[in-house]
Amino acid sequence: MSGMRMTGAAVVGMGKPATNIQRGGESGFWAVNPMTGEKLEPKYGCASGVEVAETTTQASEAAWTMAASSGKMRAELLRKIAEKLLSAQEAIVQRAHLETGLPLARLNGEMARTVGQLQLFADVAAEGSWVDARIDTAQPERTPMPRPAVRSMLRPLGPVVVFGASNFPLAFSVAGGDTAAALAAGCPVIVKAHPAHPGTSELVGRAICEAASELGWPEGTFALLFDSGVDVGTALVQHPLVQAVAFTGSTAGGQALMKLAASRPEPIPCFAEMGSSNPVFVLPGAMQARAAAIAGGLAASFTLGSGQFCTKPGVVFVPKSMPDGFWETLRATVGGMASMGMLTAGIAARYRQGVAARKHGAHGVETVAEAARTVESEVAAGAPTLMKTTLEHYLSTPELEEEIFGPTMLVVEYAAAEDLAPVAQGLRGHLTATMHAEEADREFVARLLAVLVHRVGRVVWNSYPTGVEVCHAMVHGGPFPATSDSRFTSVGAASILRFARPVCFQDVPDEWLPKELQSSNPLGMERMVNGRRTRESLE
Amino acid sequence: MSGMRMTGAAVVGMGKPATNIQRGGESGFWAVNPMTGEKLEPKYGCASGVEVAETTTQASEAAWTMAASSGKMRAELLRKIAEKLLSAQEAIVQRAHLETGLPLARLNGEMARTVGQLQLFADVAAEGSWVDARIDTAQPERTPMPRPAVRSMLRPLGPVVVFGASNFPLAFSVAGGDTAAALAAGCPVIVKAHPAHPGTSELVGRAICEAASELGWPEGTFALLFDSGVDVGTALVQHPLVQAVAFTGSTAGGQALMKLAASRPEPIPCFAEMGSSNPVFVLPGAMQARAAAIAGGLAASFTLGSGQFCTKPGVVFVPKSMPDGFWETLRATVGGMASMGMLTAGIAARYRQGVAARKHGAHGVETVAEAARTVESEVAAGAPTLMKTTLEHYLSTPELEEEIFGPTMLVVEYAAAEDLAPVAQGLRGHLTATMHAEEADREFVARLLAVLVHRVGRVVWNSYPTGVEVCHAMVHGGPFPATSDSRFTSVGAASILRFARPVCFQDVPDEWLPKELQSSNPLGMERMVNGRRTRESLE
Repeated sequence: MSGMRMTGAAVVGMGKPATNIQRGGESGFWAVNPMTGEKLEPKYGCASGVEVAETTTQASEAAWTMAASSGKMRAELLRKIAEKLLSAQEAIVQRAHLETGLPLARLNGEMARTVGQLQLFADVAAEGSWVDARIDTAQPERTPMPRPAVRSMLRPLGPVVVFGASNFPLAFSVAGGDTAAALAAGCPVIVKAHPAHPGTSELVGRAICEAASELGWPEGTFALLFDSGVDVGTALVQHPLVQAVAFTGSTAGGQALMKLAASRPEPIPCFAEMGSSNPVFVLPGAMQARAAAIAGGLAASFTLGSGQFCTKPGVVFVPKSMPDGFWETLRATVGGMASMGMLTAGIAARYRQGVAARKHGAHGVETVAEAARTVESEVAAGAPTLMKTTLEHYLSTPELEEEIFGPTMLVVEYAAAEDLAPVAQGLRGHLTATMHAEEADREFVARLLAVLVHRVGRVVWNSYPTGVEVCHAMVHGGPFPATSDSRFTSVGAASILRFARPVCFQDVPDEWLPKELQSSNPLGMERMVNGRRTRESLE
Repeated sequence: MSGMRMTGAAVVGMGKPATNIQRGGESGFWAVNPMTGEKLEPKYGCASGVEVAETTTQASEAAWTMAASSGKMRAELLRKIAEKLLSAQEAIVQRAHLETGLPLARLNGEMARTVGQLQLFADVAAEGSWVDARIDTAQPERTPMPRPAVRSMLRPLGPVVVFGASNFPLAFSVAGGDTAAALAAGCPVIVKAHPAHPGTSELVGRAICEAASELGWPEGTFALLFDSGVDVGTALVQHPLVQAVAFTGSTAGGQALMKLAASRPEPIPCFAEMGSSNPVFVLPGAMQARAAAIAGGLAASFTLGSGQFCTKPGVVFVPKSMPDGFWETLRATVGGMASMGMLTAGIAARYRQGVAARKHGAHGVETVAEAARTVESEVAAGAPTLMKTTLEHYLSTPELEEEIFGPTMLVVEYAAAEDLAPVAQGLRGHLTATMHAEEADREFVARLLAVLVHRVGRVVWNSYPTGVEVCHAMVHGGPFPATSDSRFTSVGAASILRFARPVCFQDVPDEWLPKELQSSNPLGMERMVNGRRTRESLE
């Protein structure tokens, strides 16, 4: 690194010069290469209280412009951000690789996903019907009281604070789904960078700032703040000008933010996606039909990305009476694996602790297979580990339902498929549940499915929960403790609904109404008029 | 009253006999006629912890049936409830009159509204498109990864606890909007009766039970619990089987429930509508054009229903420089009024205290007019009171923005219309804001409107905020502290969205999907298919 650039940004904002802010102080931090343990220059500053205050004030001012902007303008911003990211892809992906240890191919794929998300939200914003425009026309002759004209639509909440996630340095971080959805809704965004990938965050943040500046958006449209600890995040969530919070990460982190958001003098919505153990239910007929294939699929799914996905299958229920192929395939596949690089040394250490506690803490859990080889060069690594237990032991040991972040899976053997629906009923909230079933399992399917629908946000059939499609119908959510608010998804087009609230206009003349609600339907949108969906003009 | 019926219900449930449960104990309570102060028989019991547990267990069991029911079945239930209420209208309205002091004409109107709400939600449930069905079809050939079929829809949350409001003993109570919306969504309902109108609650609750029983709904579909204090409500909100809370009432009550709901081991959504002072902004041109009419309209609106509406205009901003007619009309109208009966002696006492504190507590507030006559026979009464102050004093006295529940209004005189947008920007959250404007006010409208949209759920133009139309586009909500969750309305068709969450189904075969998501579109509903709204079948 050049000697000119030993101190990195504390804040990346649209009004800030593109060169880094020089900061004295000892409060800064470095990213660490998890493959080597070496510090990565530059040192990043931690944003100060003054910088938090400036940033939120600017965001609050930008909120007026953004709320008044058209969906097409916001679509243009999102597409420009995608463009800027693609231009900087090489540098971003290289830096992300150093900071996270994730393979380049994965990071290039994640970049494609990030760009795809921005484009999806651009389409949603430009098309515009997400605002749920509703018009009930006036009935001046109605008795005993005339009916006023009532028109409503969703409007942006205002400044949103987004917390970058460690495990998707692009798709769930600075320009990830939360940022894209909030900008699409018309909300300014303040991102608190994840301290494990500040360099990636900075590059992405600068790309967003450039895009917004080039298109003439106000300074507070977007900002990125750095911090090695929790002070900046806490100050942001507690700041009176902040109107919503989006977070993807640990249960502890998410619950701390939920408490902060709920205990403000004016509580605000907090969308925390905290992960889950994504139970998989393999019914006897499915196991009979394709034991080895299921074993292979599970092994691939729980170790994908070093098991560092919130949709990793953590618990799998399988019949005790088993055809050949399942255990053999799992043992061979997992035993043949090497230890896997993880995102940070801290995450790897917590993973190893979690696995050790489960292996040694409970007599009823048996280790079935472990990666035999370790990769010496990796400082932050975890060995894929497969464990098993009985249903009885599982039911009497509630902590076995808890997520261990990393490449481990617990297989639970059940004696009777009838027991699965009651087991499912005892589950806490999860992001997903998966069923493997064949014709022979028919008698168990309906009841189990009905129960699972109550406990998760997504039910997966004869497949695996990793891989979250970014589309209109996706629900990446689920009852607490999987998320803080099961009424919303954090992935897919519907996640825009997190950042808006309905406002209605009673008897307000057309000229003062948002275009979405004007009688002539100038945007040609589908709207609900007197309870009926139509694209018609009212004139 | 007959000696046979000296003790009323503690619980009205579908499985309970229609005769009242005889209860010993001293924990019961009576309704009190607010016009005379006399106790109204029978004495009502307070539900016990065992009864709370039984009720929630039954509701939780009924949740399965309800979640599996069709929208048409739920529509039938809602229509049957409406029918039963109409059959019992005379008795219900008579009892409500004794318990609340509200005039019979008003109560008959409120019954019509209540029945209308049930019918609206029946239509919404039967039509079905509120579930926001979304389908993204599979793309097995897509590279690098095939796209699964992803289908999502809103599904009911489970048992909902509804708190009856004092000021609408029918429309916001046992069979009110919250109950109708929750049943329409497919959620069992447990109502905690408001202790000021237990007899009305019982009659309405029995009508609901009869309707549900006749149609064969399970026992836990609906229950009504009585309590004179907060123990039963607290136990219900904290009960692990309860999934959501709906409340209309005081700020203190609502905030207590918000805290309870947020601090559960598994937090649940709490929809508290806590009221507001519904600021009215009269611009100079409007005042010039129709001062007397505005004065008359305001006087009628703030005293309607003895000012006991959450949409009562509590604060009105008017130009200091004023044509004749405004103050004269207000003085004459208010001065000519008599004191007004209020819902309970407690509410009347709090009203009188609130008015006295405002009158005497702050030097800058002047009493402009008071009802001259008092109605001696009414035990719980409040005198309509009109006060005024300057904008300067208002801005330096934050408590003047707080609601005083009852027939009082504070007029705030401003010098320059330019000041109104900054004043509006300083507002806390309110349910409504009203603007009176004419062509001459053009230069002030856009900015003021843009600000108000951020502070309220409904903007009313050249009219008055009282009167909340029950329709598809209504938003009865607004930022905290008006409500606990500005993302939802508590009146109108969209209020059903409070009681549902999205669930998605990935690659689940048609035969196991809810009808709403099946490929053939058997319900003929409008759905979003690959991002496009259509009623087409996919086959």
